[in-house]
Amino acid sequence: MQILIKDKKILIIGLGMMGGSFAQGLSRIGFEVGALARRQESIDYALSHGFIAHGEAQVREEYVRQFDLVISGLYPGAFVEWIEKYQGFLKEGAVISDMTGVKRAIVGKIQGMLREDLEFIPAHPMAGREVSGVENSDCGVFRGANFIITPTERNTPEAIDLMHDIAVLLGFGHIATLTPEAHDEMIGFLSQLTHCIAVALMTCKESSHLAEYTGDSFRDLTRIARINENMWTELFLDNKDELLSQMDLFLGKFTQLRDALAREDTGTMKEMMKLSTHRRSYFDKK
Amino acid sequence: MQILIKDKKILIIGLGMMGGSFAQGLSRIGFEVGALARRQESIDYALSHGFIAHGEAQVREEYVRQFDLVISGLYPGAFVEWIEKYQGFLKEGAVISDMTGVKRAIVGKIQGMLREDLEFIPAHPMAGREVSGVENSDCGVFRGANFIITPTERNTPEAIDLMHDIAVLLGFGHIATLTPEAHDEMIGFLSQLTHCIAVALMTCKESSHLAEYTGDSFRDLTRIARINENMWTELFLDNKDELLSQMDLFLGKFTQLRDALAREDTGTMKEMMKLSTHRRSYFDKK
Repeated sequence: MQILIKDKKILIIGLGMMGGSFAQGLSRIGFEVGALARRQESIDYALSHGFIAHGEAQVREEYVRQFDLVISGLYPGAFVEWIEKYQGFLKEGAVISDMTGVKRAIVGKIQGMLREDLEFIPAHPMAGREVSGVENSDCGVFRGANFIITPTERNTPEAIDLMHDIAVLLGFGHIATLTPEAHDEMIGFLSQLTHCIAVALMTCKESSHLAEYTGDSFRDLTRIARINENMWTELFLDNKDELLSQMDLFLGKFTQLRDALAREDTGTMKEMMKLSTHRRSYFDKK
Repeated sequence: MQILIKDKKILIIGLGMMGGSFAQGLSRIGFEVGALARRQESIDYALSHGFIAHGEAQVREEYVRQFDLVISGLYPGAFVEWIEKYQGFLKEGAVISDMTGVKRAIVGKIQGMLREDLEFIPAHPMAGREVSGVENSDCGVFRGANFIITPTERNTPEAIDLMHDIAVLLGFGHIATLTPEAHDEMIGFLSQLTHCIAVALMTCKESSHLAEYTGDSFRDLTRIARINENMWTELFLDNKDELLSQMDLFLGKFTQLRDALAREDTGTMKEMMKLSTHRRSYFDKK
């Protein structure tokens, strides 16, 4: 299997931190990897670091047509636009995948307009860094991380297997399959809500002096408060209904704990802490 | 300095994870360390692992009277009771310190009843683990951590220096001095509020299946959701007014972000994210 899929030529669209990390990892495995990026400097960086074999800053049909697998590292809206504009350039039968953190907002749109011979198999690697740009690429972040594929009835078993195999080769530890709807609910809770909490907490106080007094808990809780405002605002809006309902769920529980403290209801406080301790044990790394 | 203070005999009261870690670290430095613990097994464990030179499960005057420095590893309420009951046993001129996470609730009480010749110098090591018991002791957690001393007008420069030097010897990276009031406000925000957030988040959903899909953000945010419900309920109640006001501050910011999303006010969302990113940079480990 590995020998067969390594014959495929892979195009990465967009050389940010995630696109760069994919390119780096796929080149290391032995794929021929090309890239499209808006900035020539990103291509130069990726070339000089061996992330890609070649790359271009303009979208040319002759260049794009050589690739069997195209993986988008663009923001959701830019990815939809790219397909709209350039899908005519793609090789017959090419497979397209992505790494965006929302699925309902893009999967239907893309599958609704895609050429009959092309196949879009959506994916979401649950790994990343709080820094952006190709120079922060690090395919080591994939090691042991979760990888989610969100196929629909338009997908073939072959394409699902292909993305599964690529995730395994990149070092992901657990590959799951979800519907786009289940994915967005899950991610609304596990990822988007946590980023909202971190941002809200970090904006509470002017805090330049607080670092001197903190333990690790505040530092851990706010690691993700360093956030790319353009990307995350787009992701939040693309998943608005789910994220709002997850935020309201959290608000309810937080308020329950607050009110229990206010009336010194130690029974409720301890019950919540016991439940929390029990549930957290599922997340201990194996 | 180091040679002089190492002549002091130190008593640790209570051999939990924190008391045990202090005993371990102080013994390694070269102090003669004794301990009082309710359970003989805790003493046996600490003896067999070289954390202490000797220890007792009963509070005997002849044993207690030999120590120059007494450090409590008890919960706040139990510590106040211990002083009430046993301060008569302490050596003339002995210095007492502690490691409890609240200060206003105990400092006034203890200094109000303390024998004239004794001195209580309150301290809060900002380090710990999510597991309890002497067998989980690890003085390595002190390395580079913050240590807060909360003296009042009853304290002498000598006692403040003593705790400062002990913190340095134990490997703490930054030693700060705060009033008990400023400490409780700070800790209400940095530590107690973060634990409330983690508990509330962890109680939102039955989550045994969620670990398969999560990235590191949820895992980091909920590390402290594994929580000792008896200790933390006591700490929260002892700092109730401060913690409630910190919780309300966070609720306000979180609701502001929620409402901005609901009305698709991307300007407010991005402003909050930019502020959050800026403020988080203060917490990057140097």
